[in-house]
Amino acid sequence: MGGSMIGERFVAVSFGESHGRCVGIIVDGCPAGLPLEETDIQPLLDLRKPGQSIITTQRREEDKVEILSGIFNGFTTGAPICMLIWNNDSDAKPYEMIKNIPRPGHADYPAMVRYGGFADYRGSGRFSGRLTATLVMAGAIAVKLLKITLGIETVAYTTEIGDIRAHNMTKENIATRYDNEVRCPDLQAAQSMKEAILQARKSGDSLGGIIECISSGLPVGMGEPIFASLESDLSKALFSIPAVKAVEFGSGFAGSKMRGSENNDSYMIKNGKVITKTNNAGGILGGLSNGMPIVVRVGFKPAASVAMTQQTLDVSTNEQTNLTVPGRHDPCVVPRAPPVVECVVSMVLADHAIRSGLIPLVLK
Amino acid sequence: MGGSMIGERFVAVSFGESHGRCVGIIVDGCPAGLPLEETDIQPLLDLRKPGQSIITTQRREEDKVEILSGIFNGFTTGAPICMLIWNNDSDAKPYEMIKNIPRPGHADYPAMVRYGGFADYRGSGRFSGRLTATLVMAGAIAVKLLKITLGIETVAYTTEIGDIRAHNMTKENIATRYDNEVRCPDLQAAQSMKEAILQARKSGDSLGGIIECISSGLPVGMGEPIFASLESDLSKALFSIPAVKAVEFGSGFAGSKMRGSENNDSYMIKNGKVITKTNNAGGILGGLSNGMPIVVRVGFKPAASVAMTQQTLDVSTNEQTNLTVPGRHDPCVVPRAPPVVECVVSMVLADHAIRSGLIPLVLK
Amino acid sequence: MGGSMIGERFVAVSFGESHGRCVGIIVDGCPAGLPLEETDIQPLLDLRKPGQSIITTQRREEDKVEILSGIFNGFTTGAPICMLIWNNDSDAKPYEMIKNIPRPGHADYPAMVRYGGFADYRGSGRFSGRLTATLVMAGAIAVKLLKITLGIETVAYTTEIGDIRAHNMTKENIATRYDNEVRCPDLQAAQSMKEAILQARKSGDSLGGIIECISSGLPVGMGEPIFASLESDLSKALFSIPAVKAVEFGSGFAGSKMRGSENNDSYMIKNGKVITKTNNAGGILGGLSNGMPIVVRVGFKPAASVAMTQQTLDVSTNEQTNLTVPGRHDPCVVPRAPPVVECVVSMVLADHAIRSGLIPLVLK
Amino acid sequence: MGGSMIGERFVAVSFGESHGRCVGIIVDGCPAGLPLEETDIQPLLDLRKPGQSIITTQRREEDKVEILSGIFNGFTTGAPICMLIWNNDSDAKPYEMIKNIPRPGHADYPAMVRYGGFADYRGSGRFSGRLTATLVMAGAIAVKLLKITLGIETVAYTTEIGDIRAHNMTKENIATRYDNEVRCPDLQAAQSMKEAILQARKSGDSLGGIIECISSGLPVGMGEPIFASLESDLSKALFSIPAVKAVEFGSGFAGSKMRGSENNDSYMIKNGKVITKTNNAGGILGGLSNGMPIVVRVGFKPAASVAMTQQTLDVSTNEQTNLTVPGRHDPCVVPRAPPVVECVVSMVLADHAIRSGLIPLVLK
Repeated sequence: MGGSMIGERFVAVSFGESHGRCVGIIVDGCPAGLPLEETDIQPLLDLRKPGQSIITTQRREEDKVEILSGIFNGFTTGAPICMLIWNNDSDAKPYEMIKNIPRPGHADYPAMVRYGGFADYRGSGRFSGRLTATLVMAGAIAVKLLKITLGIETVAYTTEIGDIRAHNMTKENIATRYDNEVRCPDLQAAQSMKEAILQARKSGDSLGGIIECISSGLPVGMGEPIFASLESDLSKALFSIPAVKAVEFGSGFAGSKMRGSENNDSYMIKNGKVITKTNNAGGILGGLSNGMPIVVRVGFKPAASVAMTQQTLDVSTNEQTNLTVPGRHDPCVVPRAPPVVECVVSMVLADHAIRSGLIPLVLK
Repeated sequence: MGGSMIGERFVAVSFGESHGRCVGIIVDGCPAGLPLEETDIQPLLDLRKPGQSIITTQRREEDKVEILSGIFNGFTTGAPICMLIWNNDSDAKPYEMIKNIPRPGHADYPAMVRYGGFADYRGSGRFSGRLTATLVMAGAIAVKLLKITLGIETVAYTTEIGDIRAHNMTKENIATRYDNEVRCPDLQAAQSMKEAILQARKSGDSLGGIIECISSGLPVGMGEPIFASLESDLSKALFSIPAVKAVEFGSGFAGSKMRGSENNDSYMIKNGKVITKTNNAGGILGGLSNGMPIVVRVGFKPAASVAMTQQTLDVSTNEQTNLTVPGRHDPCVVPRAPPVVECVVSMVLADHAIRSGLIPLVLK
Repeated sequence: MGGSMIGERFVAVSFGESHGRCVGIIVDGCPAGLPLEETDIQPLLDLRKPGQSIITTQRREEDKVEILSGIFNGFTTGAPICMLIWNNDSDAKPYEMIKNIPRPGHADYPAMVRYGGFADYRGSGRFSGRLTATLVMAGAIAVKLLKITLGIETVAYTTEIGDIRAHNMTKENIATRYDNEVRCPDLQAAQSMKEAILQARKSGDSLGGIIECISSGLPVGMGEPIFASLESDLSKALFSIPAVKAVEFGSGFAGSKMRGSENNDSYMIKNGKVITKTNNAGGILGGLSNGMPIVVRVGFKPAASVAMTQQTLDVSTNEQTNLTVPGRHDPCVVPRAPPVVECVVSMVLADHAIRSGLIPLVLK
Repeated sequence: MGGSMIGERFVAVSFGESHGRCVGIIVDGCPAGLPLEETDIQPLLDLRKPGQSIITTQRREEDKVEILSGIFNGFTTGAPICMLIWNNDSDAKPYEMIKNIPRPGHADYPAMVRYGGFADYRGSGRFSGRLTATLVMAGAIAVKLLKITLGIETVAYTTEIGDIRAHNMTKENIATRYDNEVRCPDLQAAQSMKEAILQARKSGDSLGGIIECISSGLPVGMGEPIFASLESDLSKALFSIPAVKAVEFGSGFAGSKMRGSENNDSYMIKNGKVITKTNNAGGILGGLSNGMPIVVRVGFKPAASVAMTQQTLDVSTNEQTNLTVPGRHDPCVVPRAPPVVECVVSMVLADHAIRSGLIPLVLK
């Protein structure tokens, strides 16, 4: 079904380009009867929006969602929900220079080859981080659907920026994650992260980081082995976010260094419910949810757009050349990513909840 | 299309259970005209087979592949290729005890819930590591197809076992990776890894580890943004391997700590070909191959089956209970995993090569 | 992937409702480098548009296509092409009455049940014939793609209206099919059909009819047995057109009365090309194109909307009631259907041409 | 996902060739907890089997189904169910002659071109009517699932052979359809049909015919508009049966000649249930089930294999040649088709019932 779609029963179909008329997404398969309007989606979009603080790009985008279909009298109808954001008239001129000069770390070069020079390269076109706004639109519906029907909630927050690591995450401080600019529950780490980002920008450079995401309230047994395990489908969706280069569940790579007797989570009963003492599995065993919170960590590379001059090629002549990309860039995309990760994870969980028959086709 | 299938144009469909009549897989979409017989597949299966050395389970499985369809006169016909391995009569009795007593770290508990007690739990049924033999069968076809048509080659090897890390990987020692029991190109590390595994077994415990995989010879521009990026589809497939909990590409999680100016790979020309000086991207930019080798690291948790007694529940009574699982287990699954990773990666690349029109429907 | 999508490599995704903000469709998988603009699509839309003659509904819809994405500098980019038509402010009031009173022959009743009363019932919502405009938009791209790359051309025309049957179809008169209001190449039959339609409208009733469609220029061997035969995929697409209740290929139902020796088409050589003397197979054998023109006949039921009073139920009370649906309806939808059939058939052929590797991902 | 698969949630994957080792099919997505064993499938296979009467081919095939996976302790487990029939050692020699000489009316020629000469042409390979045995195997599971869970029953019977048409179908005589060799409820017509078939064989020729199929007990609202309407998915599946060239629902092509006021089915209440007075819609409105029986008619062309000498080409030389195909053929495939049609229709309905959430993932 091609690369513009994801999901089987809660399906998202992406369209639009960074500097085209709009960016948009269709959600097909959302049950009928979910109360939904633009105001359910806009707050999550606003959390992703640039220009919110001094550590993000100063580009101003209004990012106002419009729903074009699938809603009637304030409820979903069961028909495809098409949503979009109109792009403002952005200045495409600065991008003329990269037509033949691929920026290091960007999709420019492989996209040129694949699409034979026909791709819309302005502002990275289809490969722009701007497309994550569409993931948020689709995911915001999933967030509401999961909360209303199954009580599933998903939170994502910054846990590392560069070499600064947050500590002491608690349910309480995670709840306030959006109160600081870097979206990090550990306020002391947040302050250091902010300084590191400002420092990186000052030196014309950029930073990467890690987002952690926790989904709680899942029923036991979601996922479809072998190839549609929760890990498979979550990672597939998460790697669709530009700049993501690593994904791990539960104890992840650190678990590879543990012994089986340590890493195995023992079963016990708490309040009449089967739980595990530890959660090294990150809530997933055999690709199925085991009722514990799903824990996934997502590694973002440092933003490819840096203000420094970089060496590259003019592929029209194969001559080495220096490139200084003008424009205002995010020195670190991580602070804008938590709502994206929350939404992407929710999309996958909504799809699997419907596939598992846990959400009916009509909500009463 | 459900969880038993993967791929769009080179599609694999899995069937069978660990202790049922057989384990098997169908490959649909393989071009016609590929010379293929069982002997193309058996050597890769043999590399995965248990009982090959003192560090793997002493269980003996012959794992002899039979091709049931899709081949005529020694060539693929373009029709689905059904392959299977008949299971020997294995003793299912020891598994009666786990019917209601889920083993920590295994799929037992969520599978019980999802399938309402109807799942074949013997030897973990559909969740058994034995199913990786089917991935090897499907992938072996992809390996041959990619090599003959595009010259793509994929190598996987052990890079970490427990806390032992290999060093000094070279093209030369990687080529000899299957010459030692742990499949590690660094012979000194290999020796320590072997000792660590034997030690873990002695203490009734198990170890995890990390496999690294490199695919070279890829054309530029493979992958389908946004949701079928190479990273998305490779990770989806890799997380289908039991025990995998982490996947990273190129500089991966370490890259999250780097600066953009460091992590970006500069373009240059070598022998008339566009390459990058470094390969922190792991051969993938914007989800598309950029012509550099694809580098992916796969984290395996320590084997869930340990000889030690563990605490768990009897879910029929919700009483706490101790469990000692009898039988001969792998103290570490990593040494058997390199052919699995090579095959899984090749399956995804074959699918994308066909989707990209790089391999014709009939080979001449 | 749900019911709003069709195709595997040339994929169409539908959205919008008859009286919502818009009706639209995304085409994903169109190769890069196809010259495309709104003027390639509008003429086919205009042929479908109501209000063109006295035999169609007098409703006026401008039906002006807008392309929102996927085009850059006048060429397709390889990205999803989102197209839509904004709906005029139509008066939804007359539809209030049918909220609980399903119109005979319409989707009203089963849609009420399936969507639990949440579906947008105004103007039949998703079930409206208006949605065929989206099929034309997607298909118009396929028409151009097939013509430019493979020289495939598809023509559809009215062959029966009510009990009037056209005769003497020739290549020449088929080429002029759009010159008369009923789109029938046989001018004498066309005149009788027109009169019959006017007569039906006068009596507050409606007529059905049959469209014949011929695609020529196909390469041999398109189609994917067993389940994606050309007949399977063409019929699936054609039955998506509202009011279609019958589809037959080649000699079709009449062929069921023939003997094998009569119905089999003998092979011969003409101008160095393998052809068959007759074409009872309608260009398809074993689900694959055999190089002869594809011939398919599509039966449309008489329009469900009639001016007469009809008996039905008020499903809120289960009381029998009479219903007179106000508004201006098509007394026969067949004259507006030929461009729809041409476009739907072209969509399927474009999908299969790409799946068969006959059209590259980038057009030069 | 290619042409070897059909369905989204109840998925069938076909494999095998007429003269290869076996023909088989996988059913994936069948809920866990359905009691199932070979004896549930064999009776339907036996009804399709050749050699049952003097009007079918005298070839003897045992057609004994074996289930290889997905069943445990007599119940489905939720895992893929792989089933196959081993082929007897059939004599492939007679088929050597057709390697380059395509038989009129068969898939030989387009298959040669598509698969570049690599296809298994023995006994028509993948295009053989023998593959319908696999449809029966998959469908037999659907038949049982639908009956147990929703009370849906599907009956198919011969209604026309050549120019002989059956009359006076009643619920009672339809129930006895398998009591005569042509599977026609009208015993008088059955006798004439039998004579016509014997006569056709005597003259070295073959006959076609029409099967009618009725499914009753459907819930209202099954189907997924726009592209997965029940008509779309049923026709797609039915056209996968070799020799099918026409499909119509309800009043079908005859409905195209009716007036709207005649063809529209009025709603009424009977025993507290909404029904329609007539059933010209064939149980489907807007692509959704309306609660009335689904009625579909399927046109089969006369068997392509005839004993007469036919004109064709040697495509290795492009010389005209005469061809007399030896072997024992069915003079009419229609009498063997009713179980195939019942099973194919049931497969589609099972898929949609699961997609609609009408059948749970675990049966209690």
